[in-house]
Amino acid sequence: MKSESGRSVVYLVGAGPGDPELLTCKARRLIGEADSVVYARLVSDEILDLIPAGPARFNVGKRPGFHPVCQESINALLVVLAKGSRRVVRLKGGDPLLFGRGSEEVAALAAAGIACEVVPGVTSASACAAAAGIPLTHRGMAASVRFITGHCREDADLDFDWPGLADPDTTLVVYMGFANIGRIASRVMAHGLDPATPAVAICNGTTPRQRHVRATLGTIAAVATGAEFDGPVLFIIGRTAGLAWPGEEMEGKVADRARYAERMAGAAAE
Amino acid sequence: MKSESGRSVVYLVGAGPGDPELLTCKARRLIGEADSVVYARLVSDEILDLIPAGPARFNVGKRPGFHPVCQESINALLVVLAKGSRRVVRLKGGDPLLFGRGSEEVAALAAAGIACEVVPGVTSASACAAAAGIPLTHRGMAASVRFITGHCREDADLDFDWPGLADPDTTLVVYMGFANIGRIASRVMAHGLDPATPAVAICNGTTPRQRHVRATLGTIAAVATGAEFDGPVLFIIGRTAGLAWPGEEMEGKVADRARYAERMAGAAAE
Repeated sequence: MKSESGRSVVYLVGAGPGDPELLTCKARRLIGEADSVVYARLVSDEILDLIPAGPARFNVGKRPGFHPVCQESINALLVVLAKGSRRVVRLKGGDPLLFGRGSEEVAALAAAGIACEVVPGVTSASACAAAAGIPLTHRGMAASVRFITGHCREDADLDFDWPGLADPDTTLVVYMGFANIGRIASRVMAHGLDPATPAVAICNGTTPRQRHVRATLGTIAAVATGAEFDGPVLFIIGRTAGLAWPGEEMEGKVADRARYAERMAGAAAE
Repeated sequence: MKSESGRSVVYLVGAGPGDPELLTCKARRLIGEADSVVYARLVSDEILDLIPAGPARFNVGKRPGFHPVCQESINALLVVLAKGSRRVVRLKGGDPLLFGRGSEEVAALAAAGIACEVVPGVTSASACAAAAGIPLTHRGMAASVRFITGHCREDADLDFDWPGLADPDTTLVVYMGFANIGRIASRVMAHGLDPATPAVAICNGTTPRQRHVRATLGTIAAVATGAEFDGPVLFIIGRTAGLAWPGEEMEGKVADRARYAERMAGAAAE
């Protein structure tokens, strides 16, 4: 690799959903070898605890509606760090090329002539689905899956192919959608998706603080608001969401799942 | 965990895309602790080399059109193994709940009263996108991403919401689509997606045998067939696929990416 010849490399590393054991082995290794680490709010404390004492740390955390460090400044920071240190690790929650604006950082580094490698991570949809017992695809229930972000530029309108989103044979996953889930649900219902379609909201997925609530497309906005969540929330909407474990059964993910089998068989037979 | 009280657990473990460093730390640990390991064709040799000498191994490999072990027999095998060993690891390529029929294995285990835990993995879309330089989402180019499987039951017709798939603002990823990519491309073109839309086929993503070819929606079937691929192929279709590195630049993923930045900026500005 180029880093061994003395040239700097910025690694854009997917930190996965939150559980440090769901880091990839490569991410774990790169964190241990980094000269500097740049991270944001969606990277869990448990993962930040893995950064050794040596490397410089930069928190560029973004919160909805509150941007202490704008994207352009993050891009510039990465360029500056690469000039002063050999191995820069930029940790991003989930997967770097899925909704994280990672591609903009890749482009900025490329424009500055700085070598960059993207290390994929476990995306929140996979992790939250596994943790809540929801298959993203399942024969007879969902032949495909679609990921959208509910976070839009400033107060811009949500701009989607709404008829396409209202497909009952697709599992719909909404990232960063807490602020707009009511509008999203209304629009897909207006385009024909049954208000009784199961919907689940999962907060702090895969961490010890994980909680989830089950509802329907028609009620999910109210139920999620009432849940008083205190972290990132992912929504899963579609027939498969009806297979989620009841929230109160979540403690200890290894459990007898006879009821799950019954629900799954019943739903597939409908 | 229940396994520590002496009860058997089946771990349905996502093995990721192929590169052993892209296993999660949890998957790596569970492979080392397993009493028996069940795996299929999509798990790479490099990952199988990590299984210690002790545990019993079961290859239940499936190839398109050739099923040495049917799904029902795999389900039954997992149940039998759980009765004889404490920790059964079922390795599945990519993520277990995304197109892998993992949910059917979960259901069979639940019905037999056997504890099961799903460990998510890096899905091929994330890994191949990172390896080929394709953001799955990118401002101004793709606001969402959709995953479908091109593999259908026996010779059943491909049954999708075709108008929804023809959305130019979504990146479309086709898993297991080599046999049917021609039909899929024709149908989405018939529903209005521009034949000039960029399309990339990636074979053996993230392994030393990785290769990819770049084409358009109109030419991808012919180009992929002509590439004489010798492993699993993933297709990425949409504006973002136009950002892929040229295939010949792939050696050494750490490279100067100035041309990438130019293409990305140009495409976003269109």
